[in-house]
Amino acid sequence: MIDRICIPVGEALSEVERVLENELVSNVKTIDSITGYLIGNGGKRIRPALFLLSARVVGLHGSPRQAAAIEMLHTASLLHDDVIDDAPVRRGYPSARARWGNQASVLVGDFMLSRASMIFAQEGGAELLLALAQAMGHTTEGELLEIEHQSDAETGAETYMRIISGKTASLFSFAAAAPAITASVGKQLEEAMRSFGLGVGQAFQLTDDALDYVADEACTGKSQGIDLREGKLTYPLIVALSKSTPKERARIRSALISGSFAREEFRGIVDIVERNGGIESTLRLARETAAKAKESLVFFKPSIERDSLAQLADYAVSRNR
Amino acid sequence: MIDRICIPVGEALSEVERVLENELVSNVKTIDSITGYLIGNGGKRIRPALFLLSARVVGLHGSPRQAAAIEMLHTASLLHDDVIDDAPVRRGYPSARARWGNQASVLVGDFMLSRASMIFAQEGGAELLLALAQAMGHTTEGELLEIEHQSDAETGAETYMRIISGKTASLFSFAAAAPAITASVGKQLEEAMRSFGLGVGQAFQLTDDALDYVADEACTGKSQGIDLREGKLTYPLIVALSKSTPKERARIRSALISGSFAREEFRGIVDIVERNGGIESTLRLARETAAKAKESLVFFKPSIERDSLAQLADYAVSRNR
Repeated sequence: MIDRICIPVGEALSEVERVLENELVSNVKTIDSITGYLIGNGGKRIRPALFLLSARVVGLHGSPRQAAAIEMLHTASLLHDDVIDDAPVRRGYPSARARWGNQASVLVGDFMLSRASMIFAQEGGAELLLALAQAMGHTTEGELLEIEHQSDAETGAETYMRIISGKTASLFSFAAAAPAITASVGKQLEEAMRSFGLGVGQAFQLTDDALDYVADEACTGKSQGIDLREGKLTYPLIVALSKSTPKERARIRSALISGSFAREEFRGIVDIVERNGGIESTLRLARETAAKAKESLVFFKPSIERDSLAQLADYAVSRNR
Repeated sequence: MIDRICIPVGEALSEVERVLENELVSNVKTIDSITGYLIGNGGKRIRPALFLLSARVVGLHGSPRQAAAIEMLHTASLLHDDVIDDAPVRRGYPSARARWGNQASVLVGDFMLSRASMIFAQEGGAELLLALAQAMGHTTEGELLEIEHQSDAETGAETYMRIISGKTASLFSFAAAAPAITASVGKQLEEAMRSFGLGVGQAFQLTDDALDYVADEACTGKSQGIDLREGKLTYPLIVALSKSTPKERARIRSALISGSFAREEFRGIVDIVERNGGIESTLRLARETAAKAKESLVFFKPSIERDSLAQLADYAVSRNR
């Protein structure tokens, strides 16, 4: 589905790959190893696609270098997110951190941030750079808020929305609004694109958080239950906590605190979450958020690219990985 | 001495403190706690002073917000530098990492980077932002090169100079050159300031690396022998390795690899380093580098501020902490 959505910007996306390969080089070997590993591992390039399609909708071609820079920001944020605390390793897959250590991961993340900033400094105006810095600030604020609420069973839906709006949706929002800023299409249209990107990002993260409870590992390639194991109170669990029996609540709280639990115990929690409509509510909210985001697109005239943006919003909530 | 040097920009430096207090706020508590702790702990504000004095020399007042942003970049880099690998804790003092964990330190560092970028996006032009991104890139490249050469007894003086030029001197260089870029004083004067800052930064780091072998802990407040313990081959050791006997070399290599050693063993290594002129050579190179940096100032007309810059270069090599 994502391939079909990207058809209108297929050529530009190939150029994005070339930029990612060529502009992250350095004469420091560790940088080449880590960036090569991360970029080579691929990724769906959803944010570059969002940027490029948004550019077409506001009448621009869209710079593949800027699209690549947005992917660099995303990758840097993953690198910094993967750094672990003194706590025992919590994830099963070989992250860059597991292979090269915390320090190198942090610094290569910084290197990617500097390269992304360089591209925007070369091509973008002051207003765009300000929006970029704000998006980076909101991303980290969301991530820190999430850490603050780790294992906090009192976390409410409002805090959760603040967390995902920051950590995930602010970069989506920047990707969608950046071309409108560059094209100087006026505050109303810029705001429409910003709000479209924000909604798609929120819907994307809501879906991700539902998948963490229901996804088939063989299909997603991701381990299940990571959020619970990390003490992250995502929407499925927040809904479940608000509707469950005291006994069920106690079981969830205990799992949140312990951090490690048997596969069977996780299945038990999933059952509680499902029984209390946690997954259903999350997917419904994701669909509603995506639908609302699509409404922002009415300000732009119909086009293949506008259709692709609408499909991107649908994809965010329908994917199974 | 540093207080006297800063007199011409004393008022602006007070404003820097206000900016650091007021522009790093967030409604995320962790950010306020960590930034408050780091900023409150003070620091000599050498980089803001360098920026402000450099501004005066090229005929500008110098923005205290930009000066503060440079201190934010420095603090962010310290935060990211303090993140440890899976290796056991290596430093004795309560770093932010030790108090708040790796993850929060990384993210608050990112937050500071975003705030600094925001200030430069609001006030600086595209050229300045490009120079900033380049400086950030060089800083991380230097730090990564250092990690690559950890415990590598073959590290030569050339690699060492590349490391410190990146990790320390590139931000000094940016601080000194930024006002010249803003004032559009032309490539020659801009280059003079860049090279002044670079030299001061190199001299500063060389002195730091000598102090790690000779400083009186009671006076510096820093533990001695940190570099050796971390497997960092700094200039004093590089000189010692090139001049020592095979037996002495074996002892150094063993200390570099082991990572932990008794106080007595460290004294033994210091003796080897001193006996082979490692500390003397390092301090001499620092003085020569500072003297060469000062030559760049001849392009500017005599003034109190120019004198202060020269004194700042002297301070970099004469301080005992």
